[in-house]
Order: sequence, then structure tokens, then C-alpha cells
Amino acid sequence: MKIISVLGSTGSIGTQTLDVVRNSEGKLAVYALSANSRADLFEQQIREFRPRIAVMMQEEKALYLKQQVVDLPVKVLVGMEGLLEAATAAEVDTVVTAVSGSIGLEPTLAALNAGKNIALANKETLVAAGELVMQTAERNGCSIIPVDSEHSAVFQCLSGNENAVKKIILTASGGPFRGWSRERLAEVTPVMALKHPNWNMGAKITIDSATMMNKGLEVIEAKFLFGVDYDQIDVLVHPQSIVHSMVEFRDGTVLAQLGIPDMRIPIQYALTYPERWENRLPELSLAGKSLTFEKPDLAAFPFLKFACSCGQTGGTLPAVMNAANEICVHAFLAGRIKYLEMHELVERTCQAHQVLEIKDLDTVLTADRWAREYAASQINLG
Amino acid sequence: MKIISVLGSTGSIGTQTLDVVRNSEGKLAVYALSANSRADLFEQQIREFRPRIAVMMQEEKALYLKQQVVDLPVKVLVGMEGLLEAATAAEVDTVVTAVSGSIGLEPTLAALNAGKNIALANKETLVAAGELVMQTAERNGCSIIPVDSEHSAVFQCLSGNENAVKKIILTASGGPFRGWSRERLAEVTPVMALKHPNWNMGAKITIDSATMMNKGLEVIEAKFLFGVDYDQIDVLVHPQSIVHSMVEFRDGTVLAQLGIPDMRIPIQYALTYPERWENRLPELSLAGKSLTFEKPDLAAFPFLKFACSCGQTGGTLPAVMNAANEICVHAFLAGRIKYLEMHELVERTCQAHQVLEIKDLDTVLTADRWAREYAASQINLG
Repeated sequence: MKIISVLGSTGSIGTQTLDVVRNSEGKLAVYALSANSRADLFEQQIREFRPRIAVMMQEEKALYLKQQVVDLPVKVLVGMEGLLEAATAAEVDTVVTAVSGSIGLEPTLAALNAGKNIALANKETLVAAGELVMQTAERNGCSIIPVDSEHSAVFQCLSGNENAVKKIILTASGGPFRGWSRERLAEVTPVMALKHPNWNMGAKITIDSATMMNKGLEVIEAKFLFGVDYDQIDVLVHPQSIVHSMVEFRDGTVLAQLGIPDMRIPIQYALTYPERWENRLPELSLAGKSLTFEKPDLAAFPFLKFACSCGQTGGTLPAVMNAANEICVHAFLAGRIKYLEMHELVERTCQAHQVLEIKDLDTVLTADRWAREYAASQINLG
Repeated sequence: MKIISVLGSTGSIGTQTLDVVRNSEGKLAVYALSANSRADLFEQQIREFRPRIAVMMQEEKALYLKQQVVDLPVKVLVGMEGLLEAATAAEVDTVVTAVSGSIGLEPTLAALNAGKNIALANKETLVAAGELVMQTAERNGCSIIPVDSEHSAVFQCLSGNENAVKKIILTASGGPFRGWSRERLAEVTPVMALKHPNWNMGAKITIDSATMMNKGLEVIEAKFLFGVDYDQIDVLVHPQSIVHSMVEFRDGTVLAQLGIPDMRIPIQYALTYPERWENRLPELSLAGKSLTFEKPDLAAFPFLKFACSCGQTGGTLPAVMNAANEICVHAFLAGRIKYLEMHELVERTCQAHQVLEIKDLDTVLTADRWAREYAASQINLG
């Protein structure tokens, strides 16, 4: 039996992780769960999975929850302190970091320092502090198994061939606005952007998919996870979302991982690696299918190139880009800025930032905070 | 440096194997070469690669060759005896069995008994005596690395995941007659059948591709190479010949191997495994490409189903089917029988055969000889 903590259990990845646990026939057990604000769903999860620790990030929701689950032997904790306890408890084998945004960085580092393996669904962790995180993992002999479908695909294709990589090819669905001109994109509303053609995901990542910032973040994540250079990472638009990513090797061979677009497959693999367990998901059927590939439109989706160039500059710049993007996505979802303004504001924030080398977690958190404040101030100005 | 013998060096796989050696910068060396009848090309190969042993299958050609290379320190040998010496010489690490037809069986078994690894391009070896060959390999601690692009693909996708296989999916180009009706197929001539849309191969295998007998032989080969049941092997037509085959695992994941259709890639991999070496072949470019998949037309291409059922019956039947098919392909190429008669005659030969359990090489060779004689007699009758 493997014992896990799920940070962010009421989100999209969190609930799907619990579905994997549900179908594991007792081979996976939950030690701790955490949620941001959805107390009622969280209570249901606590009743079903009986964790020893339940962390509610919002304090007043925590008080409410405590009363609701008073009949259960669960310790309800609050905020970052609770998150850190969930991430480092001695009983836990693997920590699933499924929180959204750069909040995931601190508990991930704490878990690694406590010797835990990480099932990483929070890409902002590597974007903001990739080198720090990977070094911490190595120093503590921990594995970081990606949950993102693209990185899970690359991880699986690389297996045993790590020394022969020529190129990593991340596939992208292209999102709901593939083929759109910038003029047409100017009129995009949150409702339009929230309709992803293939994947059912949380709101933040769905918007990032629409702008292709998501793929930019993934390029940076891949750089650190797999220890390659930026010029070894290509992005190819593949609207059918069946090939989840590929690796090209130095002998000309390309290995690809395919599957139905269901996050429970990579989640399960991250929890069972190096084993593969059965599940009840539908089989991929390729007969009658056509898989197409095209180059991304870098002019219509400037975030992709921009994210890569921030990655190449390195230091605190990717953390700043990521934090500014989080603010902008939420402002867009709240109707406070327009679709194209997201890119403008993130770029402006990055230009205003004085890039520092990352020495420790504090450098990252300070840059992150600065970027949020700066981006928010620019939105308020507008 | 790895020292190899190439059995069948003047054929399509043989010459491409020598091209891989040529580009290996001295990391591969040739100890022995063998050829059936093409003495002039063989002499060129001997001059370039300087083997210690050169085997000419046809005796009079061997006498001619001996005179031609009298200035070189090469031992010219004749026929099966020579082939066995080339396959078992102490200096050799890996034997490439690139001969065409069931002639490959005896030297392959001899090489395994001498502790050699096999780069297997001769699928008839496993079709005729799969169990015997695999058991011999296991007993002697030898590897059989497939050279066929499909089996090389499966081998690469399986790596490290052998215990989690659900299904092997062999891809097939569908050959030049994909989508044709049986009526139209009745008029097919050798010239038409020799025009394969994607692959540049020898005449025998090109005809087998046109009839899809080749895929049937590959299903049987896969069964033995990968130790799966017949109902775990699917065939999917993929006209672009970019995905060379796939493996579906029990968690729903599918891994696929892709590449340009160039046999030098799987040949090289079979010789460098588990390493991957660079080469000068063009890169696969997927941008702008569409990969399609469809179920095979079992009515128009009855060999596929027929081969699988012969495989399922087992014993000497696959050897008989394979031998009868060799006779029929050559008769078709010589204009002695029509395209659709190949299937009729192979089926008739199999029906006339009394299936025996394979106890040793002799059982196989006797069945093979019987099938050749029977099929030939039927052709002469017609």
C-alpha cells in the first residue's frame, strides 16, 4: 500500500486523484487532504477517504469544517502551516501537489526535504524555482514524477533512454482559438476561453491553454524536469490531444505516448510508477482516427515564445512572469481586463522587473509577491 | 567495437546493414559475410569491409569469387556449411540474419547455440520454429533483437514495461492495393505488386506486403518474440508508415515508435541496443502531416487472418504455410500463377498437411521440404 497526501484535493486534479484512489482497491491510502475554500466538497472527501489530516487554507472555512467533521478522527489544520504538515508527515510516501499557482512551491520543497516523492501537478513550482526544486530533490534522493499529461508522456518515452535524447516534442491542442487571428482574439470573453475542446480542467489552466501560456509554462517545466536545453524543446500543435508528447532520440527514432484525454491516466501512473495498474477507463481506439500536427502560430499566441525567452533569461524572471500571469488570468476571468491585455500586462511586469539570481526560497517568494503587486497595480491603473 | 556476421549481405537488409557499419566510425566491424548468388556485388563488399570469412551459397559462384579475391586474406566458404561457420565463429558478437526465407533457421539456431546475439531480420525463422528458437535463445542466455521495423518498434515500446502489456498493435501500410476489391486484385501483375508505396525492400517481402501475408508472418513472429497470445495482437492499417507499431498497456497508455521509413534505423538499433547512436539520416518532421489508422480489409487480404489461424494451430503448420508461400511468391514473380492463386495454393497446401508437434529442427525442415514439394506439384498441375 502507498500512502499519499493530496494538496489541493477539491480542484480538478485533486478530485481525479481521489478517483484513482477510489479505484485502487485499497492499494492507495490517503493520509492528508487540503482544500482552499470548497468546504462542503471537502467534507464529503474527508468522510469518504478518512484522512488523518485535513487542511483548509481559508481560516473561517476551517472553523466551519471543524464543526462539520467533529464526529471523525481527523485533525483539521489551517493555512500554509497545515499544508507543510500534510506535505511532510512521517507516514506519507508520496505527495500529490495539485494546488493551483505558486502556492505549491513551499510545500513541495518541504516535502522533498522530508524525503517524500512528489507527484507534481503544480507546474508553477518548477517554473518559479526549477533549479532549486530539482537540486532539493536530488540532494534528498527523491523522485519528481510529472502528472501533467505532456510531461508524463515525455517521462514514459524517456525511460531507459535518458542519455540519447535529441529533442522533446511537447504537443499542444491549440486550445479553443487555434487558427484565430489577433483581431478575432481581441473579442474573446471568459466564457469563450473556458470552453476547451478536449480536456476538462480547472479554470486557470483552461485560460492558460487558450492563450498557450500553459504550453510556455510546460516548456520551462520540461527544461528542469528532464535537464535539457531550451533549444531541445519543440512545441507541435496536435488538435486531437491523443499524442500527449514525444521524444526524438539521436538515432532518428521518435517515441510517443498516446491515450484518451483523461488526466486519471497520468495521475495513476505518477502514483504507481514504475508499475502500471489496470483501471476502468475506456480504451483508446485509433481505427478511423486521423492525427494531425502543425507548427504553433507564434504571432497569434505570443505567450509561447515569451515564456521561453523568460525561461532562457532565468533567475527570478520565470517566477515573475508566472505570478503576473496568475493575476492577469484572474482579472480576465473577473471581467476586469480583456483577453489580449493579459499578454501586455505580463510582458510589462516582466520588463519592469530587475532579474535576480535565485539563491533561496525567499528570493523567489519576494519576486513572486512583487510581480503580483505590480501586475495588480497596473490593472487598477487601467 | 562490436564484431558482426551478416548472413545475406547482398540483399536489401544486408546492404543497408553494411551502410550502418560504414557510418559507425569503426564501432562496428564485419567478421563474416554471406551471399546467395550476386558475386560481383559480394566482391565489392568484401573489398570494402574486409571480412575474414565470405560465404557464397551457390557452389560455382563460390569458385568464381575465390579467383576474384585471391589477393585478399579472406576465406571463401560454400553453402550451408559455410553459413554455419559464419554464424558461430568465436570472434563474432552478433549475427545479423538477413537471408530471405526459411534458409535462415539453421544458422540462427547454430548461432544461438554458440552464444551469439541475433539481430533478426529473417522473420521466417520464428514463423517456422518460434518456440524452438526462443527456447534455444533463453537456454544460451542470448538476445534476439528484432530488425523488422514493426518488431523493433514494439521492442522499444515494451522496454521496462514488459509485465504490463495488454495489446501489441502492429501497423501495416496496407501495401499498393489498399482499398482494392477482390475482383480488381485478380488482375494484379508482378510489376504492380512490386511497387510498394513507402518501403524499399526485397522482392519477396514486397509481394508479401502486397498480399498482407507479411503482416500475418509478423503476427506470428510477434507472438514468439514477445511471449503474448494471438488475441493480444492487433493489426491496424496506417498508410503513412510513420508509426512503426505500438503497445497498449493495462493502464490505458499506448506507446508508439515513429520514424522515417528507413530500415537503417531499426537495423542500427538492433546492433547498438541498448545504446542509440547518431546517424546522418533525415529527421522525421511531423508538422503538416496527418497520420491515419483503419482496420484491415480481411476479405480482400485473406492471408492475414489465415496466417493467424495457422499460428494458432501451431506445430508444423506455420512452417508449411511459410514454405508454400515462398514457392507461390516465386511462381507469381515468374508469371507462373496469378495473384489470387497464391492464397488458394498456400491454403490448399496447409489443408493437405498433417500437422506435427515440433520436437527438433528436423521436424521443421521435413515439413518445410514437404510443403515446397507439394506447392510446386500443385503449380505444375495448374
